[in-house]
Amino acid sequence: MDLDILRHSTSHIMAAAVKELYPHALLGIGPSIEEGFYYDFDIPGITLSEEDLAKIESKMREIIKKNLPFSRSEMCKSEAVKFFEDRGEKYKVELIKEIPDEKVSIYTTGDFVDLCKGPHVKYTKAAKAFKLLHTAGAYWKGLETNPMLQRIYGTAFNTKEELETHLKRLEEAAKRDHRKLGKELDLFSIYHEEAGAGLVYYHPKGAMLRFLIEDFLRKEHLKRGYQFVVIPHIAKINLWDTSGHSGYYKENMYFMEIDKQKYVLKPMNCPGHILIYKSKLHSYRDLPIKFFELGTVYRYERSGVLHGLLRVRGFTQDDAHIFTTPEKLENDILDVINFAFQMLKTFGFEYEVFLSTRPDKYVGSDENWEMATKALKLAMEKKEIDYKVDAGAGVFYGPKIDVKMKDAIGRLWQGPTIQVDFNLPERFDLHYMAEDGSRKRPVMIHRVVLGSMERFLGALIEHYAGAFPLWIAPVQATILPIADRHVEYAEEIKERLLEQGFRVDIDISREKIGLKIREAQLQKIPYMIILGDKEIEAKKLAVRAKTEGDIGLFSLDDFINKVKVEIDNRA
Amino acid sequence: MDLDILRHSTSHIMAAAVKELYPHALLGIGPSIEEGFYYDFDIPGITLSEEDLAKIESKMREIIKKNLPFSRSEMCKSEAVKFFEDRGEKYKVELIKEIPDEKVSIYTTGDFVDLCKGPHVKYTKAAKAFKLLHTAGAYWKGLETNPMLQRIYGTAFNTKEELETHLKRLEEAAKRDHRKLGKELDLFSIYHEEAGAGLVYYHPKGAMLRFLIEDFLRKEHLKRGYQFVVIPHIAKINLWDTSGHSGYYKENMYFMEIDKQKYVLKPMNCPGHILIYKSKLHSYRDLPIKFFELGTVYRYERSGVLHGLLRVRGFTQDDAHIFTTPEKLENDILDVINFAFQMLKTFGFEYEVFLSTRPDKYVGSDENWEMATKALKLAMEKKEIDYKVDAGAGVFYGPKIDVKMKDAIGRLWQGPTIQVDFNLPERFDLHYMAEDGSRKRPVMIHRVVLGSMERFLGALIEHYAGAFPLWIAPVQATILPIADRHVEYAEEIKERLLEQGFRVDIDISREKIGLKIREAQLQKIPYMIILGDKEIEAKKLAVRAKTEGDIGLFSLDDFINKVKVEIDNRA
Repeated sequence: MDLDILRHSTSHIMAAAVKELYPHALLGIGPSIEEGFYYDFDIPGITLSEEDLAKIESKMREIIKKNLPFSRSEMCKSEAVKFFEDRGEKYKVELIKEIPDEKVSIYTTGDFVDLCKGPHVKYTKAAKAFKLLHTAGAYWKGLETNPMLQRIYGTAFNTKEELETHLKRLEEAAKRDHRKLGKELDLFSIYHEEAGAGLVYYHPKGAMLRFLIEDFLRKEHLKRGYQFVVIPHIAKINLWDTSGHSGYYKENMYFMEIDKQKYVLKPMNCPGHILIYKSKLHSYRDLPIKFFELGTVYRYERSGVLHGLLRVRGFTQDDAHIFTTPEKLENDILDVINFAFQMLKTFGFEYEVFLSTRPDKYVGSDENWEMATKALKLAMEKKEIDYKVDAGAGVFYGPKIDVKMKDAIGRLWQGPTIQVDFNLPERFDLHYMAEDGSRKRPVMIHRVVLGSMERFLGALIEHYAGAFPLWIAPVQATILPIADRHVEYAEEIKERLLEQGFRVDIDISREKIGLKIREAQLQKIPYMIILGDKEIEAKKLAVRAKTEGDIGLFSLDDFINKVKVEIDNRA
Repeated sequence: MDLDILRHSTSHIMAAAVKELYPHALLGIGPSIEEGFYYDFDIPGITLSEEDLAKIESKMREIIKKNLPFSRSEMCKSEAVKFFEDRGEKYKVELIKEIPDEKVSIYTTGDFVDLCKGPHVKYTKAAKAFKLLHTAGAYWKGLETNPMLQRIYGTAFNTKEELETHLKRLEEAAKRDHRKLGKELDLFSIYHEEAGAGLVYYHPKGAMLRFLIEDFLRKEHLKRGYQFVVIPHIAKINLWDTSGHSGYYKENMYFMEIDKQKYVLKPMNCPGHILIYKSKLHSYRDLPIKFFELGTVYRYERSGVLHGLLRVRGFTQDDAHIFTTPEKLENDILDVINFAFQMLKTFGFEYEVFLSTRPDKYVGSDENWEMATKALKLAMEKKEIDYKVDAGAGVFYGPKIDVKMKDAIGRLWQGPTIQVDFNLPERFDLHYMAEDGSRKRPVMIHRVVLGSMERFLGALIEHYAGAFPLWIAPVQATILPIADRHVEYAEEIKERLLEQGFRVDIDISREKIGLKIREAQLQKIPYMIILGDKEIEAKKLAVRAKTEGDIGLFSLDDFINKVKVEIDNRA
């Protein structure tokens, strides 16, 4: 059975159960979604609890047991409006009125009647394996000015085994939730109330994690011939008039006024990098010119869609713009692909590759689109990459390669993107001096390799479940003196390790050693160095690794060497 | 003779000369300033040129030769208004009307009469050594809505020798002007028209220079126990309501609206760092907590005062906030002073130290002011620092130490500041857990060690006249193949040097070697590596140093070792 049909049918069964239990509940919409389904209800006076979900589930089982058929019928629109008006279903009435067709289709299951396009399973017994998961508030039609409805999320599979596997994965995902771990590991905060939604404050450990990744990125970019640039966060609107963003992207931009002129908090870095490219005439021999910046951008997102580090209003891209010649384009794309893959491998991600082609609305000549798409394809073929085509999913100014990162529990995350752009070079009237002395138009590649630092860190926290590999662990080792009399020696060891550039903490609380170890485990610190009378006398360190437990006694030098090798290998 | 009196008198002589040459010129104001004087004129129909300045100078010499006396008299206000109205001197009339006293003083020199407080030299012959420098537009009273006047700048000294020395220094300063060098060395741009005034775009070489300094700063901060944090550039206005800035600092802040709430583009980093401090309760044992961030802030400055990298609208501070106990305060101040001095020495700056004490308007108890000022004094005394007191120049919430950097030609630049603050901990209700288990109020230190990256880079460019020491030179060596047949070997050498982490360019133009060397000299690149038949055969590099010229043949390894030592020494 097709999962979408099964899940959508299960959402009807859920709605039927809700209507039986809460006859005054009004129906919103109930689609199938990526990993399940939901249905929105307006139930005046009632806020659904965990126990209510259990009640609804058992009512659903009753309905399924009856093995009721899903039967389709049609009504003309006015008839349907009257039918749902009589039942007080104002949301359904609103939906029906928006349908352009003359007739609407209706699905009936027992007493439950719903406006619905279908298709559905034949009988309710098909819903063998389902589970209601949780509730959430959801504005009607997603608009903050509309009433808040109660959304019930659930999922369904064809077999109990598949459902079990999925629920286990959800449980694992919940444990890895970066918002939960962000708090437990003291990595970041978002002060919705005090400072604004969707804006991330990095606490010292989160800032260190981010710095280590950024530092690594900067070095990797330099190695590959990228040049750093730095641009301001605000600019006159005319840059965005030229780029075209002040028209079609306006809703996502933040504006302010300076000296009676309109300024924009930059939503992307391209126009700034372009200004620098334009500051002198470049020769074909100098191309590709590759400008790199960890560029912070701000884009408006509705408060309802904000989500931890994954959907925010301000984020930093590991952004580069490559200005190149049409002849060099394919090779430059290949370089970027190789770079992106190497970065993802470093962080232990698998990946899947998509080619997004020309959308319905686009700018630029068909010839340029053809050339750009071909360059992306040829580069991937040269590298024998197994990619899927996402037809029509390119951006309006050019096609792109999207790389999705697959994490430790098999989930896909948005990762590197490589976009080819003939449009902005045109709009900003860019040139280079060709071999024959004529002025020609360069091509631009917009690319990120990790994406946004925020989203990447969110993914990384969940991928590693907060247990970061040694080379990026904010705290690499914590020293645990057993008693107060061991603190002095512990401080000495700490100093020696700091001198070597390691990130080391010390736990000088007066807790028992067992508790100190437990705390270090919770903080997911890779190494614990336990120091007591025995260790001090032997001038050794008793080392515990987070994953393997006790790994024995080390001299300081041996420990340093062991750790250095591990860091160098980025293991 | 007091220089202020001499210069102000010379400005009168200049005004007298202008009135003789351009009888319809109207007088603005003509004060003495730090290194000279100016006078503002409204001369309808005339724009003063270089030649005009020469004419004015010779007219001044005539007046000086006559050795006219400066004579003081008094008028009652109404009389003075009438006197200047009769002469059409509308600006003077405006000034007189603003004077609260009954009588005003008037100075007369020959036919020239001016509203003036004095004092002056006795006779015009005192103005032995003067020079008119340049003209500039200046709004009457500095307001953009007022008419634009013509300002003539000049300077005067007691002796011709002193004047000569000063003019030589001005000439030297002009050669070092960071705006001029910024263009010649391709370091940065400010796209006033296209992107907005006072906003800096760092080109690759400028961005590399900045990155190297920032990288160095980050490491130095980590060494000293600072912790990194990262905060967003925008925040709800309520943070600034709490801090008090939305009241008295409003004019300098940029506002925007998100979801119908007022947001601010941050003009300082303190409130963000405070939020992070507040995210948990800290023990006295954990204090001082030192949050460091290269934090970019935006502050409105009138377009007329913007100046290259020195006065901008967006800049990045090497900002830290230290949260400490009153008991630890003095020691923490001492640490910061030591840190700041070490940083300035690294960049070859001398410095002068000022203690800015309680201003007339202040917040907080006298006891706290006393304590803070004493802590600053004691710390400086412990280090035997010879400081000057700048009475009343502290910020409203606490006293501060200002360190001025003295550059290679003796000019002072604003540098590190260390401010003690009892006010924000109060306003944000900050605590720490004291030894006795009670909650106490921490003290904050606001400090920057280099100041703003923009201003520091501006100072650094002028200090080094663009010839940066090897460790921060954006390009450390350039390889100059003599002919096309040497390019391949040159590329090989370049790769080997890049692998070692050096910043190396190659000049593959088809110019003669002499021209290539000249270009490298102009670009102030520390080392040139010249490669021709002889060098390739001998497997050697012919090395030229920017300052010493030809320094002989090196094997690649010897060159690498030589350069490494120099970089490590930050010579």
